[in-house]
Amino acid sequence: MTAGDARAAIRAGTIAAPTERLAPEHVQANLVVVAREYAAELADLCARNPVPCPVVEQLAPGAFEPRCAAGADLRTDLGRYRVWRDGVLAEQPRDVRALWSQDLVAFLIGCSFTFDHALAAAGLVPRHYALGRNVPMYRTRVPLAPAGRLRGPMVVSMRPYQLRDIERVRAVTRPYRVGHGEPVAWGDPEALGIDDLLRPDYGDPPVLESGDVPVFWGCGVTPQSVIVASNVPFAITHEPGHMFVTDLIHRDLGAG
Amino acid sequence: MTAGDARAAIRAGTIAAPTERLAPEHVQANLVVVAREYAAELADLCARNPVPCPVVEQLAPGAFEPRCAAGADLRTDLGRYRVWRDGVLAEQPRDVRALWSQDLVAFLIGCSFTFDHALAAAGLVPRHYALGRNVPMYRTRVPLAPAGRLRGPMVVSMRPYQLRDIERVRAVTRPYRVGHGEPVAWGDPEALGIDDLLRPDYGDPPVLESGDVPVFWGCGVTPQSVIVASNVPFAITHEPGHMFVTDLIHRDLGAG
Repeated sequence: MTAGDARAAIRAGTIAAPTERLAPEHVQANLVVVAREYAAELADLCARNPVPCPVVEQLAPGAFEPRCAAGADLRTDLGRYRVWRDGVLAEQPRDVRALWSQDLVAFLIGCSFTFDHALAAAGLVPRHYALGRNVPMYRTRVPLAPAGRLRGPMVVSMRPYQLRDIERVRAVTRPYRVGHGEPVAWGDPEALGIDDLLRPDYGDPPVLESGDVPVFWGCGVTPQSVIVASNVPFAITHEPGHMFVTDLIHRDLGAG
Repeated sequence: MTAGDARAAIRAGTIAAPTERLAPEHVQANLVVVAREYAAELADLCARNPVPCPVVEQLAPGAFEPRCAAGADLRTDLGRYRVWRDGVLAEQPRDVRALWSQDLVAFLIGCSFTFDHALAAAGLVPRHYALGRNVPMYRTRVPLAPAGRLRGPMVVSMRPYQLRDIERVRAVTRPYRVGHGEPVAWGDPEALGIDDLLRPDYGDPPVLESGDVPVFWGCGVTPQSVIVASNVPFAITHEPGHMFVTDLIHRDLGAG
């Protein structure tokens, strides 16, 4: 399946599952759309917090066809959206054409699904990936460096591994800098302010096995926690796990 | 006083105070020197944590004359050095020529002294600056995003302000991105894991007044906490407050 085929199937509604296994050689991205008057602050927030918020592309005001996916339409091609008003989740529509305007600026932010395929290829298959589940994601108490009106806690994704595999896991994911790179922490959820691993804030609960050590990566859902913490008047994002499939391949971003 | 005059006076030992008020139009920088085999990891740590560790310049292995200061010598021109062995402060020499080798890689990292002059010019004179003291600096419990063998907590500098001034303070410092930019937090030292404001880990204790709110910025002493936390076999840094005076002026780095 090409990236364009994946986008067409999502747009048509024939694929409704998380996008992880679609077009695995292609970079997937988180979507964040804000009003033009917030765009400079969001760009600054990403620059100051590049591990959870690595920018793949910032579009011009009003634009919905990114340079990284010719012919695509960000208003329809994710299939699952979240619309936020005054920091509160207000709607979860299937497309956002009716909400679009010249006042909106879209950002595409890197996604850890990028390196899950590399982990699998290295024999370090992520648990959620093997089980066909969505990855578990958690709001931490690690504060981002704020930017203007934007602030909030870092969100992380989690993959359990045996202790003996962690250095290899770090090495495999390190080059994927635009996909969050190597882990931010492992072994101690409480150090990040995560109280209960079995109750993630986004995605599916993890399936844990004996000897598992939780390994945490920066996550592109972080801007959604920023929208809430900062009471952003209006924003559109993807539904966690339902990513935008770009035409980029991993080595376009310096890895893989 | 030109930047070159300041460096010459420091080298000659005729200036021994913190460098803040020297050549105020010039960018000052933190120094971190590691063995070549750690250089890629230190560069990655800085890229992943640009708020505390904004890179002004990475030199070639063995080099001690930076591009940002013609004729300077990083081995003599700071006047106060710290030599670290196995993560422990081992010596505090006045120059490090005898320790230099082709195996060492020097990094210059941005410093908040850069914006103190801008704050003063805006009528928001930092307290330590008005009193001729060194800025207080604290190790936090906010973890950096690790990079390979390097990890550790963020170090912050602190300037007290009245609540009504904080948004102006944020706005003045925001453009100085290579000098840590706007604050990372304010108002709640405990949220950063700082137990006692009156006992900083580096610099001079603050002089607090009624109504003061502590405002915290990322700090280029952070790599020194990384050297300790990561048991780096060998490193050289500056003494906190005794910075390298570059030939760069603030607008070379996009601000001021």
